[in-house]
Amino acid sequence: MNTKVLPGFQELLPNEQLEFNRIKRIIEDAYLTYGYRPIETPVLERAEVLLSKSGGETEKQIYQFEKGDTKLAMRFDLTVPLARYVAQHQNDLVFPFKRYAIDKVYRGEKPQAGRFREFYQCDIDVIGRDTLPLEYDAQIPLIISEIFTNLKLDFTIRINNRKILNGFLQSLGLKDIAIILNILDGIEREGEGNIKKELIEINVDAKTIKEIFTFIQLNKLNNSKLIKALKDYEINSDMYKEGVGELSFVYKKMKEMGIKEKNCKIDLSVVRGLDYYTGTVYETTLNKYPEIGSVCSGGRYDDLASYYTSNKFPGVGISIGLTRLFDQLLRRGAIDTAIQTNTKVLVISLCDDDDYINTLLEKFQESNIAMELGVGDLKKNMTYANRLKIPYVVIIGEDEIKAKKYTIKDMDTGKQQKKTLKGILGILC
Amino acid sequence: MNTKVLPGFQELLPNEQLEFNRIKRIIEDAYLTYGYRPIETPVLERAEVLLSKSGGETEKQIYQFEKGDTKLAMRFDLTVPLARYVAQHQNDLVFPFKRYAIDKVYRGEKPQAGRFREFYQCDIDVIGRDTLPLEYDAQIPLIISEIFTNLKLDFTIRINNRKILNGFLQSLGLKDIAIILNILDGIEREGEGNIKKELIEINVDAKTIKEIFTFIQLNKLNNSKLIKALKDYEINSDMYKEGVGELSFVYKKMKEMGIKEKNCKIDLSVVRGLDYYTGTVYETTLNKYPEIGSVCSGGRYDDLASYYTSNKFPGVGISIGLTRLFDQLLRRGAIDTAIQTNTKVLVISLCDDDDYINTLLEKFQESNIAMELGVGDLKKNMTYANRLKIPYVVIIGEDEIKAKKYTIKDMDTGKQQKKTLKGILGILC
Repeated sequence: MNTKVLPGFQELLPNEQLEFNRIKRIIEDAYLTYGYRPIETPVLERAEVLLSKSGGETEKQIYQFEKGDTKLAMRFDLTVPLARYVAQHQNDLVFPFKRYAIDKVYRGEKPQAGRFREFYQCDIDVIGRDTLPLEYDAQIPLIISEIFTNLKLDFTIRINNRKILNGFLQSLGLKDIAIILNILDGIEREGEGNIKKELIEINVDAKTIKEIFTFIQLNKLNNSKLIKALKDYEINSDMYKEGVGELSFVYKKMKEMGIKEKNCKIDLSVVRGLDYYTGTVYETTLNKYPEIGSVCSGGRYDDLASYYTSNKFPGVGISIGLTRLFDQLLRRGAIDTAIQTNTKVLVISLCDDDDYINTLLEKFQESNIAMELGVGDLKKNMTYANRLKIPYVVIIGEDEIKAKKYTIKDMDTGKQQKKTLKGILGILC
Repeated sequence: MNTKVLPGFQELLPNEQLEFNRIKRIIEDAYLTYGYRPIETPVLERAEVLLSKSGGETEKQIYQFEKGDTKLAMRFDLTVPLARYVAQHQNDLVFPFKRYAIDKVYRGEKPQAGRFREFYQCDIDVIGRDTLPLEYDAQIPLIISEIFTNLKLDFTIRINNRKILNGFLQSLGLKDIAIILNILDGIEREGEGNIKKELIEINVDAKTIKEIFTFIQLNKLNNSKLIKALKDYEINSDMYKEGVGELSFVYKKMKEMGIKEKNCKIDLSVVRGLDYYTGTVYETTLNKYPEIGSVCSGGRYDDLASYYTSNKFPGVGISIGLTRLFDQLLRRGAIDTAIQTNTKVLVISLCDDDDYINTLLEKFQESNIAMELGVGDLKKNMTYANRLKIPYVVIIGEDEIKAKKYTIKDMDTGKQQKKTLKGILGILC
């Protein structure tokens, strides 16, 4: 029997999983600290609900099947279920509804390096009823900043507003703006030469291409100069002006809230593949590993739940693709896998004085010291402690009980000493 | 379009989810504190892997489907994937392997009150290679005890050893022991009268039935007397004697480790439906809600992974069915759903002095105070804070900046006062 996990599914060893969970908890704690409230939706939903919005590529990737009379599908993101949730529970929710969800999603795509069929998304969204003030677009980067700072990963939040490039391209008299945006989206990966070729292929004329590239050159300016240049650029488009106004406001607010200049870059090349976004868009790259691409992306959208309700719910949100991020960091040796267990101390009792042992256990429990109780002889226990790199071992034998002390061994230095209970707690707390 | 979640799938409102997650974290923290190491296996596996062991009822319940050439299934418990994991990674694991897993499983059963098609299992298991000392059977209740104590739920851990009843029934010359055990399993729910009828139906004679009931009467004794009575009972069965010896040892160790007498009951009627268990078996009931039945069950098994490897891995473990437990407590009003958010304070800034606001935000971040930044006018923010029951609101206006103070309002008492930053932190920390 083939007992390997299926290709495209991540399965970690316990030490890796421990680190994965630590990172997951850092993300969750940041979401909680900024007032996001948890929701959890089912992995399985009616296929018609999950598919109402999608088509083409997405639909092909979705795991779907029938059980009894019902067509079921596994969710492929956390946004469609959020839309359904908001539509369904709108009368029970407080708006703006700030929600987080950290959960697995499923996409049966062709397996390839760095792509997963089952992966964690860590999402936050702020959903307004009818309207949602632009201030929220500026609050999102604060949380991104908190998370990657806590993860000790140098990062750059790249921010843009889709209205800017949209308005600019419209002002050039271009029609296939979605297609052109998609081409420009590849500029970082493919280089200017290839992008030019692709634009020529769809019959954009040389003069227009030149104008596009002159505009995108602005990207090289620092944030304040770029904002000024965008304002000064003479473009006859209300959409453009609206976009520049929004971006300028969001950037100003981000700075006010203490986002460091070195951690944010206004980047006109950020457009995000999805049609879905209508204003602010974000990507986040790791300065040390730019080749990983964006590890935290999102943006502003006009209407979350139009497939499920006639009420309007604009929102702004981001998602961290944790499974992929972890995988990429693991491949680069950037994940600390040395810690094998949460256990701080292994207690080895070589005799039977229950009261004496119990006093120790009770104190450990009170002080929340992560411990294990050894079973079997001393040698077996020491091997176990060594293999799991448990930092301390406490030994209780006849001598210790007579002396009313405990032997504690620092497994790293090998230093062994007899201590009172108070002394033991002093070392472990 | 029907946008309701499918029957048998739990979906909570944010305040309920917050409490669900709090309970989940208490369970996880207890597992971590006793040295259990996390693993996570995919929800989807090859159908042949998940189905290798099962048959009949289980197989009918499993969600399975084809994608491309592969037959896939959704896991229906966390034990089968654990078996596959141990077999596959046995050379990378340290034994005894103490693992925890808190994750969703799927069973497409007929939906009925209190039964779920998607539900959380919170499992721990200790797996030995070749052998696993009996001490581990006694350590498991320590963790059960820690969890339900932390959850502030009065509980009774019911413990038994399958060898006892098995050996006893064998000594009576009975053959269909599995069937009889299944009938006896219902004694608490159905009462002695019905159980007698069922035994007569499968042709157990009156004398034997009397002997069975005399034996089960022992259950009324307290733990120490029951152990003594089991030892004194004259039964000609090695299996029986082994079972009594094991149970007696496990009980003694449990007491040594500080499990309170009021929280454990040796209960001969605990047999567990599964054939799987071979020795110690556990159930846990809530004293206030006995009708919920067992909320944490498990036991000792001889060989975890026989379907995937010829090596022998005995183990002992338990599982908490968190989704059902939460649902049952929620229905009984035993879940506190008053807390709507993790946010401690809503900061409302009515003017533009960034430095002044930033100093506050930085201090809040340093002190890990969960906060939200208000957007819009005072009234809107107060409504938001009221609806989410945010405990404090901090207001920054021109007056506050001039006085170098902040206004803090206790939303519960309505008391409002002007305080320095230090004073604010004193209230919130």
